[in-house]
Amino acid sequence: MSSLAALKEILNKVARLNQAAAVLDWDQQCYMPPGGAEARAEQSAVLGRLHHDLFTSDEVGTLLEKSRAELNGAGLDSDDVALIRVTQREFDRETKVPGDLVAEFARTTSLAHETWVKARKANDFESFRPTLEKVVDLCRQVAEHRGYEDNIYDALLDEFEPGMKSAEVDKIFGDLRPLLVEMVKHIQESAVKADGSIMTRSYPIDKQREICNDVVKLVGYEFENGRQDEAAHPFCTNFSNKDVRITTRFDEHYLPGSIFASLHEAGHAMYEQGSPDKYEGTPLAGGVSLGFHESQSRMWENQVGRSKEFINFYFPRLQKTFPDALGNVSAEEFRRAANRVEPSLIRVEADEVTYGLHIMLRYELEKMMLEGKVDFKQLPDLWNSKMEEYLGVTPDTDANGVLQDVHWSSGILGYFPTYQLGNLISAQLWEKMNQDMSDIPEQMSRGEFGAILQWLRENVHQYGSKYMPKDLIVKATGKPLSSDAYNAYIESKYSEIYSL
Amino acid sequence: MSSLAALKEILNKVARLNQAAAVLDWDQQCYMPPGGAEARAEQSAVLGRLHHDLFTSDEVGTLLEKSRAELNGAGLDSDDVALIRVTQREFDRETKVPGDLVAEFARTTSLAHETWVKARKANDFESFRPTLEKVVDLCRQVAEHRGYEDNIYDALLDEFEPGMKSAEVDKIFGDLRPLLVEMVKHIQESAVKADGSIMTRSYPIDKQREICNDVVKLVGYEFENGRQDEAAHPFCTNFSNKDVRITTRFDEHYLPGSIFASLHEAGHAMYEQGSPDKYEGTPLAGGVSLGFHESQSRMWENQVGRSKEFINFYFPRLQKTFPDALGNVSAEEFRRAANRVEPSLIRVEADEVTYGLHIMLRYELEKMMLEGKVDFKQLPDLWNSKMEEYLGVTPDTDANGVLQDVHWSSGILGYFPTYQLGNLISAQLWEKMNQDMSDIPEQMSRGEFGAILQWLRENVHQYGSKYMPKDLIVKATGKPLSSDAYNAYIESKYSEIYSL
Repeated sequence: MSSLAALKEILNKVARLNQAAAVLDWDQQCYMPPGGAEARAEQSAVLGRLHHDLFTSDEVGTLLEKSRAELNGAGLDSDDVALIRVTQREFDRETKVPGDLVAEFARTTSLAHETWVKARKANDFESFRPTLEKVVDLCRQVAEHRGYEDNIYDALLDEFEPGMKSAEVDKIFGDLRPLLVEMVKHIQESAVKADGSIMTRSYPIDKQREICNDVVKLVGYEFENGRQDEAAHPFCTNFSNKDVRITTRFDEHYLPGSIFASLHEAGHAMYEQGSPDKYEGTPLAGGVSLGFHESQSRMWENQVGRSKEFINFYFPRLQKTFPDALGNVSAEEFRRAANRVEPSLIRVEADEVTYGLHIMLRYELEKMMLEGKVDFKQLPDLWNSKMEEYLGVTPDTDANGVLQDVHWSSGILGYFPTYQLGNLISAQLWEKMNQDMSDIPEQMSRGEFGAILQWLRENVHQYGSKYMPKDLIVKATGKPLSSDAYNAYIESKYSEIYSL
Repeated sequence: MSSLAALKEILNKVARLNQAAAVLDWDQQCYMPPGGAEARAEQSAVLGRLHHDLFTSDEVGTLLEKSRAELNGAGLDSDDVALIRVTQREFDRETKVPGDLVAEFARTTSLAHETWVKARKANDFESFRPTLEKVVDLCRQVAEHRGYEDNIYDALLDEFEPGMKSAEVDKIFGDLRPLLVEMVKHIQESAVKADGSIMTRSYPIDKQREICNDVVKLVGYEFENGRQDEAAHPFCTNFSNKDVRITTRFDEHYLPGSIFASLHEAGHAMYEQGSPDKYEGTPLAGGVSLGFHESQSRMWENQVGRSKEFINFYFPRLQKTFPDALGNVSAEEFRRAANRVEPSLIRVEADEVTYGLHIMLRYELEKMMLEGKVDFKQLPDLWNSKMEEYLGVTPDTDANGVLQDVHWSSGILGYFPTYQLGNLISAQLWEKMNQDMSDIPEQMSRGEFGAILQWLRENVHQYGSKYMPKDLIVKATGKPLSSDAYNAYIESKYSEIYSL
């Protein structure tokens, strides 16, 4: 057997172990009874250790080297060359950080999470501060072990958005921020107001469930290769490209919370359902980065789901399903409510325009923390003044400010920018798709989404994780990632809605 | 670290892997979309191989030996001594059979299953016969590798009912068979007839679901440590003693199919929920044998669920839930319908009296097959003549005869007797429990089941798999297993119902 074949055999085992672990996690979030938590932690830990031992063995290191030699001469477009590159990246990431540090990181963030929960509840940042400093210090150590060229932030960002540098993020966000800030101001000054109260009427949950299944099926999510359940936090997970599951949640008095979450997760899911069979059981299977993944979810949620055309097509069905709540509402009123812009304190409740500013704030702060450029005592003030500057609102409490997100307490730094990168990628893909097919609005008006999905399959999904994100965006759109398309999309959409 | 401690660490890993595999299996039977099957097979295979490699390593063999030396002097009542004994049994079973034979067995039974499905559909035993001969031959080889003292059948039976010998089964079944055959005849000759049609009226499925959750909660199944779902075949599985799940199935026109299946599976589940925390992550956790497990499920299904007292207590609730179907039915009529005896061709539809005869027939045939005492061509005739002799009915087709069960095609020989052993154990436990507490009927009349469960916890559940079944039955009831209690139970119950 060739070294490459031997490597693939191990990688297949590793992939299956990961898939099994994902089933356990799905079950935990959807169906596990409370009593099951303790044993589940042990089961997951055992699978995690087996995965780690199997994947980081010397054997894998040697097989990687030998496979590379075997492939000498194979073109850059070869799947196998990509496989070795992607596997080597993951292998390095898992082996470069010493076991002791990994263990300390796990212990510390586990405790940090509890500390954060209490601090947020008590609205007491100071009680969380020493823990946060410790976590950031550990992140810094991890980053040093992984290594980086320009900025320490890059070592962490790279895990979530392979190849992306903070210098590039600085540039892209820097271009976009003033435009968004200005847009928010104009919208707030506009005489046009959307009636958000439409969305908070009574929407029976069993009917929401029907609609959520209906709407994701309509856009192309395959139920024979997936299912939709209920969970506290909507998510998408997959155990192969033929078992890709999504969840949503229901609030009787907030319709967008379920429908748009379903479309969002279906966007993630269709990316995974479109991953080619030939990559199954290898690191090339599935979405290439968090940014690209988010581009798919946001596109189906926003460019499709909140579009005039989609809503005009789908609203009659909603009206029929919720006659009490929507009987006297027009599709246009519904669209305006679904696209209402309102600066708020909480990221997860933010609209399409303000969301990016929440992200930029976090990105800037976590970069400063990692670079050692911030006095942690000043963090709440820094947060609040940026909120004022970017969004024109000031948190009433630290619980609604610097303490609101779970990420830092979990040791997840370098993740936030991918949310907004996803928005930018979605806009750039959408722009190109509309150049390639001039009648997308008409298709959506007729309730047809097959050509949109087909375009994504051909230009994004079929490549799995084969290409680096920065190469994939060029391959798909002909140019590197920038904020241009996103800015044009926001400008055009909200100028119309708010008569700017 | 002592060898025992090192062994326990490995056993904990093995147990967690098994639990993870059980989660995957539960998901497959309850929720997995059709597309997920292929990857699920790979995931399960990887977990299975890891389990096997981990558990059958030379290290475990050595640690077992050293642990036994460390424990020299510990009493027979020591948990650790029991742990070594049980682990050694499983280790031997998994290591004694050569890998090639295991692989051939897996391949053959996988194909045999398909062949059986087709043969049953085509009602063509001859097309299945060569495959069955091959499977039995492989079972024989496995049995020879495992080793046995008296009868080759014992080597297979031992996997499901540790320590049980076919000579003992012969004796117990031999005592019981004529009594059951006679009882069936008397019942058929009785002027008393039960109206089974009550059970096939329309019972809305959502209401059945409510009742099934209600009834298992009533008898003591803990939902905070479990849940009930729907599956094609009712089963119980567990991923710890705090996550024990059951399933049932619904047929709008057959009420007992869901309610009594729920009680049956809840009986299995309460056994597992009663397994002590100290055994978690070791081979001592959970039920000791299939026979003992079946004793728990059958007791809650039959001695409790089909009792006059339980039905008198619970029937008003059923009547209120299903007013259309049960409005004009009395509790007594319902009880008679729930205990109706009617010889039939199909085991899984058999009542409490005839069920054992179905089992005995299978046991006798599979023993003859293993011993080489049967010409496989004669198997259908042999089956049919035994059906006539024991139950007074003759299969119209082989599909409804010798081809009806999945077990043989799956290579599962030695399993059938445990169904009936479970019935016998349940009766013997029930008899002793009623001697210890004279007011059990009154408790059930009041809808109180806590003392029954408590008795089972104390006398059976708390021991997990620590004692051999044959010792546990003596410990719990003061005497070895016999058919006496079961015979008395059947005699008394059905003499009353059928005025014999």
